[in-house]
Amino acid sequence: MVVVMSPDATDEDIAQVVSRVEGVGGEAFVSKGVRRTIIGLVGDIESFHHLNLRTLRGVADVHRISDPYKLISRQHHTDRSTVWVGPQGKQVPIGPGGFTFLAGPCAVESAEQTLEAARMAASAGATIIRGGAYKPRTSPYAFQGLGLPGLEILADVRAATGLPVVTEVVDVRDVDVVAEHVDMLQIGTRNAANFGLLQAVGESGKPVLLKRGMSATIEEWLMAAEYIAQRGNLDIVLCERGIRTFEPSMRNTLDIAAVPVVQASSHLPVIIDPSHASGRKDLVVPLSRASIAVGADGIIVDVHAKPEAALCDGPQALLGTELRELAQAVRRLPAAVGRTTTTAPGQG
Amino acid sequence: MVVVMSPDATDEDIAQVVSRVEGVGGEAFVSKGVRRTIIGLVGDIESFHHLNLRTLRGVADVHRISDPYKLISRQHHTDRSTVWVGPQGKQVPIGPGGFTFLAGPCAVESAEQTLEAARMAASAGATIIRGGAYKPRTSPYAFQGLGLPGLEILADVRAATGLPVVTEVVDVRDVDVVAEHVDMLQIGTRNAANFGLLQAVGESGKPVLLKRGMSATIEEWLMAAEYIAQRGNLDIVLCERGIRTFEPSMRNTLDIAAVPVVQASSHLPVIIDPSHASGRKDLVVPLSRASIAVGADGIIVDVHAKPEAALCDGPQALLGTELRELAQAVRRLPAAVGRTTTTAPGQG
Amino acid sequence: MVVVMSPDATDEDIAQVVSRVEGVGGEAFVSKGVRRTIIGLVGDIESFHHLNLRTLRGVADVHRISDPYKLISRQHHTDRSTVWVGPQGKQVPIGPGGFTFLAGPCAVESAEQTLEAARMAASAGATIIRGGAYKPRTSPYAFQGLGLPGLEILADVRAATGLPVVTEVVDVRDVDVVAEHVDMLQIGTRNAANFGLLQAVGESGKPVLLKRGMSATIEEWLMAAEYIAQRGNLDIVLCERGIRTFEPSMRNTLDIAAVPVVQASSHLPVIIDPSHASGRKDLVVPLSRASIAVGADGIIVDVHAKPEAALCDGPQALLGTELRELAQAVRRLPAAVGRTTTTAPGQG
Amino acid sequence: MVVVMSPDATDEDIAQVVSRVEGVGGEAFVSKGVRRTIIGLVGDIESFHHLNLRTLRGVADVHRISDPYKLISRQHHTDRSTVWVGPQGKQVPIGPGGFTFLAGPCAVESAEQTLEAARMAASAGATIIRGGAYKPRTSPYAFQGLGLPGLEILADVRAATGLPVVTEVVDVRDVDVVAEHVDMLQIGTRNAANFGLLQAVGESGKPVLLKRGMSATIEEWLMAAEYIAQRGNLDIVLCERGIRTFEPSMRNTLDIAAVPVVQASSHLPVIIDPSHASGRKDLVVPLSRASIAVGADGIIVDVHAKPEAALCDGPQALLGTELRELAQAVRRLPAAVGRTTTTAPGQG
Repeated sequence: MVVVMSPDATDEDIAQVVSRVEGVGGEAFVSKGVRRTIIGLVGDIESFHHLNLRTLRGVADVHRISDPYKLISRQHHTDRSTVWVGPQGKQVPIGPGGFTFLAGPCAVESAEQTLEAARMAASAGATIIRGGAYKPRTSPYAFQGLGLPGLEILADVRAATGLPVVTEVVDVRDVDVVAEHVDMLQIGTRNAANFGLLQAVGESGKPVLLKRGMSATIEEWLMAAEYIAQRGNLDIVLCERGIRTFEPSMRNTLDIAAVPVVQASSHLPVIIDPSHASGRKDLVVPLSRASIAVGADGIIVDVHAKPEAALCDGPQALLGTELRELAQAVRRLPAAVGRTTTTAPGQG
Repeated sequence: MVVVMSPDATDEDIAQVVSRVEGVGGEAFVSKGVRRTIIGLVGDIESFHHLNLRTLRGVADVHRISDPYKLISRQHHTDRSTVWVGPQGKQVPIGPGGFTFLAGPCAVESAEQTLEAARMAASAGATIIRGGAYKPRTSPYAFQGLGLPGLEILADVRAATGLPVVTEVVDVRDVDVVAEHVDMLQIGTRNAANFGLLQAVGESGKPVLLKRGMSATIEEWLMAAEYIAQRGNLDIVLCERGIRTFEPSMRNTLDIAAVPVVQASSHLPVIIDPSHASGRKDLVVPLSRASIAVGADGIIVDVHAKPEAALCDGPQALLGTELRELAQAVRRLPAAVGRTTTTAPGQG
Repeated sequence: MVVVMSPDATDEDIAQVVSRVEGVGGEAFVSKGVRRTIIGLVGDIESFHHLNLRTLRGVADVHRISDPYKLISRQHHTDRSTVWVGPQGKQVPIGPGGFTFLAGPCAVESAEQTLEAARMAASAGATIIRGGAYKPRTSPYAFQGLGLPGLEILADVRAATGLPVVTEVVDVRDVDVVAEHVDMLQIGTRNAANFGLLQAVGESGKPVLLKRGMSATIEEWLMAAEYIAQRGNLDIVLCERGIRTFEPSMRNTLDIAAVPVVQASSHLPVIIDPSHASGRKDLVVPLSRASIAVGADGIIVDVHAKPEAALCDGPQALLGTELRELAQAVRRLPAAVGRTTTTAPGQG
Repeated sequence: MVVVMSPDATDEDIAQVVSRVEGVGGEAFVSKGVRRTIIGLVGDIESFHHLNLRTLRGVADVHRISDPYKLISRQHHTDRSTVWVGPQGKQVPIGPGGFTFLAGPCAVESAEQTLEAARMAASAGATIIRGGAYKPRTSPYAFQGLGLPGLEILADVRAATGLPVVTEVVDVRDVDVVAEHVDMLQIGTRNAANFGLLQAVGESGKPVLLKRGMSATIEEWLMAAEYIAQRGNLDIVLCERGIRTFEPSMRNTLDIAAVPVVQASSHLPVIIDPSHASGRKDLVVPLSRASIAVGADGIIVDVHAKPEAALCDGPQALLGTELRELAQAVRRLPAAVGRTTTTAPGQG
């Protein structure tokens, strides 16, 4: 931590900062410049936070100089991690070296629709099935998901396809029942700062797919992962899904550079959701290609056999030609960047 | 709703839109232009949403032309509402014509600190006391609030000062216990899309202070209020607290124009939180003055007797000279814009 | 300046930073921590910039700790400045203690329309007339302004009303002719980084009204002012006019907190343009009131006798009731915050 | 265009809209709903703009439903265009099917440095050389470019390498001299709304590289291209270079989805600048790979033989290992997405 004193700070102001830092067992290095003095702090950063140095007289600014996350940081865990999803013996990896394709319907609407979409997804090369039983919707008048019956449909789809399933959990009271029915719990963008929910999935014993908050900085997103990790669960896959900007032509702006930035800072795998990032099905294939090329560890895509009948996010769901194009990209393009496309358990 | 067809849409494409709209009982008015056709829809908007018109062939765009919220809209409830906070006989109003000052410490740290801050607040003219027992923090290593003991401290402060108390609830499992201890429940910016929590406070029987999500549009914020209203609770006070932008010199950017925009669209009262909007105590007084002048129904401000010892947001808490300046502004400026400053119950 | 070394930086890496800093005559203070080393630099900051320290091995980050602007900084010029606009003997001040109201039509369309709008503005209390002869428009097919004939109309209006006139200059080749016709040159938001134009108005001998770039940070805006100041012209009035954010209900988001932030950093006067900030005439009066209360040194507002016939920005132009409300606010509200409304030259 | 009336609009209000539309030769189709009336307009959109319909009594909103650009639109020019850069016989194409690599130093600092960087670029596969003689800098105290001597160096480099050269023009007075020395004129992000400059390069007779404004919507960026096209110059290459968002870990946020969005709306080629988008050299290679995969028609990258001595943007310039990695990606990856890497003139 570095404390920058204002030009009119007095010697007493400086002494007060030094004395407080030493009071919590830290060391303070004072560098007096022509116009300003800066003070470098060495020691336990958490104890420094409690000093509220910014409120002291003569303090102009305080810069933090190290990352605030620990368990998920790459600093002490140089190798990037692989997260395994699914039951013993049928696990699907997400991590470095591979490229994993997750797909399925945005929402579980019925057993038939979900199974059909899951089969489309599997035919296109998906090895993990997605589908929402609980849908966080901006309007209280919009379809909110089937709830428990939706989870049961997902469990059936998982049995029928032999593929692991990921679904979103939106309420801390549902964590246990969701964890019983599926293989991976998703935290959606709207819950990226729902810390009680993050802690609950951290204790669930299941891998977690953590979407970035739509206006979360990369650091805040990593801190959300730290909340999960702190409860003993390091099986976390990060998912970039677009951020909110001024550009109106897409639903969100895909921050594709977040992938290499995250990979440099954290050992956790990171994937991209091009469907929610753009909200437009004509953009899903080019953005999926870009995701592979930038070095993402996977993508998660909405598919639906009848987008025009979808109860949620129909305009972004793929089928037909576009899904075939995507399947081809997933099959071939990872090799061009030195990765191997992950195959279904038992087919590798 | 208006459906805009693309220039290459065929007559069959147009007929398909018309037929679907009529299929759910709506009317479709077709306007053929030189290059494009537009179709105006009349009928139940919810049924139109389920048609997924955007996914149909030949459809270029779909514009919604009416507000998606109903209960909180000013359209059928022309008079602006007043929300009353506190126990029968000691209620404090927030609403048109008045100006209500809410203040207190960001976090409840101890009985002494909270009572001292509450007394500072009351002396400065505050008629509702704020204080956090549950703190949503970006870092899992930061102070998370005292929890239940914090609520008990707040209940004591309420008894000691005779003023109603507002506190934040961050977990759906805490709604009942929080509602037992305080007079008003706050939904913080990080939970602005935590729909389960919104519904729970909608059933709590207590007034709700609903902060705007830090990247929520005004419409999304009003939709969050609609979630609460839909559960039967219309005692909602909206609170603008700054939005996330590119500007780094403040914590957030206060969107002061949101106040008249909201007042034109919704009958609910709306106040401003200049402390969290700026994160800088030197900005709290000028922003409070601007809040009064723009026509806000109140402000909510952090005060702390020893900001340098605060466990949360010390740099923005007021005391001393600045608090006196604020007190003066709250006392005098509302009259200059035709409002009466709300006084403590029994002192009016 | 502070250089933060990465955890794996070697002693040689540190020595290289020190040696480069000393090579340009600076001093380097090394603070070795448990995990990281930080190096404080003291000396000429410009010479440090040329060292490209960020590119050196082992360097994790470089923090600048002092302001990059000098001439307009409040650091060595503690008193806030007043800028005088208009010919000798008829000058109107903009600065601390006063409150100056500038108004007029967005665009000069004809002699009649401009004079009528100027008279409306003057009746409402405006003491400086605005009007655009050169209009920067997003579309090449939109009205681009009258050009030179527009300047002549403005010169006539100035003679007829006895009030100084401000108009925008958009092209470096027009600076001289504009300076001959009006009293103050405006740099619009789209030219906030047109450095050649900034330098040219810096040499024009006339006061400059410098609008903030719509996505400029406050620091970048102040650096634009520094470009003007560096050419010998310190008669600069800053103008906040809204920034670009994700919120769609207004044209821009008024960053009202920018006013006290700028006043703390620079000695230059700062005013607000509520018309362009919102783009909605129903917001102009409340935002004007807020501007007065926050401590702005003035406001600049669009008025038009027939907004429905305006060639530019009709939806935001005031007239009738709203203009009367604004006139009243300008007359009375400044006194409530300790300021005196500026009156027309010769009427004081 | 669609006019949405407010719920309380009267029949006279509706009649007034219709009458004005018909008054300029348009047709108005009225659709009366239960709560609202909408009016579809057919005819010349420019004439409708002048009606200022938004200012009329009873009008709630006006939606534009067609694109405001014409010459660069793909609507009447279905095939995507190729722009040829360089002297007759030595032209390098940028357009569909190919992938063109542009590289060179951010700034021209000396003849040696520029030639060395150009040779590095050419060895890595670049077929167009970039380099800045005029540098728009946020600070007036930063290096502003060599000016004319810089142009002469670029002309020499062009002769020495046999490759076309692109350089930025920042002042309308420099367009002619820049056009004499180089093959392509660049409009930088800060001049994206400098309409006089856009018109001047539209008359220069040279191809133009048009960077997106850092806070320009895609539509505004295309309107800037329309300004150039309107002066008779359709040799325009668009360049996405990152937009301004709240994320602080990179200089800008690369909006990679803008590439397919632009390609769907305009026939002009579009390339990506990963160096300025990120400002970090560790991100340039992954973002370049993503650019190829998303379908960009090229990339433009900063290279410098001694980044630590660069006078401008050293931290983002490539050399050594990273440049070799980039060269390999440019050589091999385009084929994986069905494109052919553009080779130097005479080597194809």
